[in-house]
Amino acid sequence: MQFKLSERITKPDFQGEFTSSILKAGASPDIISFAGGLPNPASFPVKEMERAVQKVLENNGVAALQYSTTEGYEPLRAFIAKRYEKMGVMDVRPCDIIITNGSQQALDMLSAVMLDPGDEVVVENPTYLAALQSFHLYGPRVLPVELRADGINCAELAAALAAHQPKFMYIIPSFQNPTGLTYSPEVREKAAAIIAKSNVLLIEDNPYSELRFTGDGGYSFGRYLGEQCCMLGTFSKVVSPGMRIGWICCRNEELRRKLLAYKMTEDLHTNIFCQMVLAQYLADNDLDAHIDETKKLYKEKAEYMMACMEKYMPEGVTFTSPEGGMFMWATMPEGLRALDVYYAAIARGVAVCPGDPFYEYDRDVRTMRINYSNSTDEKIEKGIKILGDTIRALMAK
Amino acid sequence: MQFKLSERITKPDFQGEFTSSILKAGASPDIISFAGGLPNPASFPVKEMERAVQKVLENNGVAALQYSTTEGYEPLRAFIAKRYEKMGVMDVRPCDIIITNGSQQALDMLSAVMLDPGDEVVVENPTYLAALQSFHLYGPRVLPVELRADGINCAELAAALAAHQPKFMYIIPSFQNPTGLTYSPEVREKAAAIIAKSNVLLIEDNPYSELRFTGDGGYSFGRYLGEQCCMLGTFSKVVSPGMRIGWICCRNEELRRKLLAYKMTEDLHTNIFCQMVLAQYLADNDLDAHIDETKKLYKEKAEYMMACMEKYMPEGVTFTSPEGGMFMWATMPEGLRALDVYYAAIARGVAVCPGDPFYEYDRDVRTMRINYSNSTDEKIEKGIKILGDTIRALMAK
Repeated sequence: MQFKLSERITKPDFQGEFTSSILKAGASPDIISFAGGLPNPASFPVKEMERAVQKVLENNGVAALQYSTTEGYEPLRAFIAKRYEKMGVMDVRPCDIIITNGSQQALDMLSAVMLDPGDEVVVENPTYLAALQSFHLYGPRVLPVELRADGINCAELAAALAAHQPKFMYIIPSFQNPTGLTYSPEVREKAAAIIAKSNVLLIEDNPYSELRFTGDGGYSFGRYLGEQCCMLGTFSKVVSPGMRIGWICCRNEELRRKLLAYKMTEDLHTNIFCQMVLAQYLADNDLDAHIDETKKLYKEKAEYMMACMEKYMPEGVTFTSPEGGMFMWATMPEGLRALDVYYAAIARGVAVCPGDPFYEYDRDVRTMRINYSNSTDEKIEKGIKILGDTIRALMAK
Repeated sequence: MQFKLSERITKPDFQGEFTSSILKAGASPDIISFAGGLPNPASFPVKEMERAVQKVLENNGVAALQYSTTEGYEPLRAFIAKRYEKMGVMDVRPCDIIITNGSQQALDMLSAVMLDPGDEVVVENPTYLAALQSFHLYGPRVLPVELRADGINCAELAAALAAHQPKFMYIIPSFQNPTGLTYSPEVREKAAAIIAKSNVLLIEDNPYSELRFTGDGGYSFGRYLGEQCCMLGTFSKVVSPGMRIGWICCRNEELRRKLLAYKMTEDLHTNIFCQMVLAQYLADNDLDAHIDETKKLYKEKAEYMMACMEKYMPEGVTFTSPEGGMFMWATMPEGLRALDVYYAAIARGVAVCPGDPFYEYDRDVRTMRINYSNSTDEKIEKGIKILGDTIRALMAK
């Protein structure tokens, strides 16, 4: 039988449909896939987690299995608050942190609490496709602002904020998904000054910022903008995505109160079992040492992939040189569509992620996202060679 | 600074405000609280869970820490599907099950996927306050139908479905929250026949149905209604609420596809670590034997509380006699407001949950919910005596 569903779920969503149709094809085990964004399992601290679970269940088993509070486990929130000092934000309190089911839930919570249909939001162009999907559920008008090699286009940003009244602006300033690009310290300061003159809320998403393997990073926007900046974080890329532990750092009290009310209605609280295990793991282990190992691994992967790109890509293909994170962003020569490359490459056993769903409006683009964190060197070499041959063949047509 | 928030989060919500202001008062450790709905921690299988975690991390640690699928862990879904046979629903497939963050998220997902502002939904009067809160986020018109000692008022239900076009109907047919009441087999069949003639989706919420300690239960509505009935379930009341593992059993393919698309946008997936641990626990232990122990404990608590109610309540106070679940529902003599009893009792150190937030429209009601699952016998006796004295004092005024 057929039920009448809500408008929000029946209106077509390019990003959602694209993701399910295109990414499914890359999931076959016979395919060399650079399409996804999985951390390398070699980076998971399985043994350490086992000891942490044992400790939690022995010392505190009942609390780990009982209902808990919406805001999350206090020791974990204290750990997160303190860690913001590394990003130059000195005054974060544990009570500013709300634990979420990964930062995907944080995106949904902020959208739900901020957006009415027709409201405007500013994003980088391109931006994270699942953030666009989240926002779309709430019917906003999306205003993309150009992303350059050193960060957002500040002139375009200033013009957008002068001409519009966006509810919020969403950025990933370090090792962006999809481009792998990072804002320079100068662009951070300049963009922050422009935003500070408006009353727009800045949502800074930082899943990868701890994974810098070359050069120095800039400060978080939270340093410049105080409560005008909500900072999102996650343990997915540095400890475990399977536990689904992310957070919102929100220093505006009224907004935080509403986010908590919304989350309580949505799912009461994030699973306390994993929160306590993770807090125990963090108390007993050196997270920085663990991240150093992951960075070493990703640096090798990134460098190996860049070397393969240099070797196998035809002239006219350009690509970013990531200083951290998990992605490289490649641009095809003029006249080629990334989608055509995608289809031709998958037929030869290699999957990449065409750029289209990362743009709100642009279609038939020449860009594509290539993930290097989760493949063996053999697969990287074999896959990039096939990809290069595929592009060369399309160029010859 | 002040941000402009969305309409859905700024409109006043009686249930939300009531819950946070009233239940907070009952949370002080000096208070004997019958106000909440916590399982008794004596029922948590801490040791068994420890062995399950160890097994999962040793045999399958990487998968437990990696990203996973939106629908959930297949062995857990297979366990749940099979278990529906106990409720008389024989043809549930693992692929019909979507794992959620507790059944609270299931309520949000169904509301988001079904409801546009102004749509109608049918509920029992009274009903679970957090379900009302969930629905309210999506702006529906709520149509309450009287709940009687043997289930929903079928004549009123038939009239409501004839006069309106509700998107869905939400019921808790076994040991309802807040009343503790259960539909008789006859009312189940009759109500199902009425619903089958309409095209309304029935959402059957079943958090407590396995906790029957007296008498026989009826079948799930899923037996009568097939894909017209979505069945919600949770491990919160029979294993652990802290893990936040609930589910939706949805046998309508189109609806299930949309629920999955929505959940993917909301939080990608429910934490796979706890899903795998729970599945391991269920494979290695006898859930029925574990539930039997919990039922024995709750039966003793319920009987003890009923005996205390008989002993200490003044004439004119009536209360339900639960056959399972965690709650008793008491009605004050005419002229008394449950809210006045609440305030007077809390001043004497005892918290109950006044009935008001369980009704969509009725206010200043005479009913209150009393939880018996999570108090010692001493506290039950002391608390009910104080409650009786309080009511007697108010009646004398």
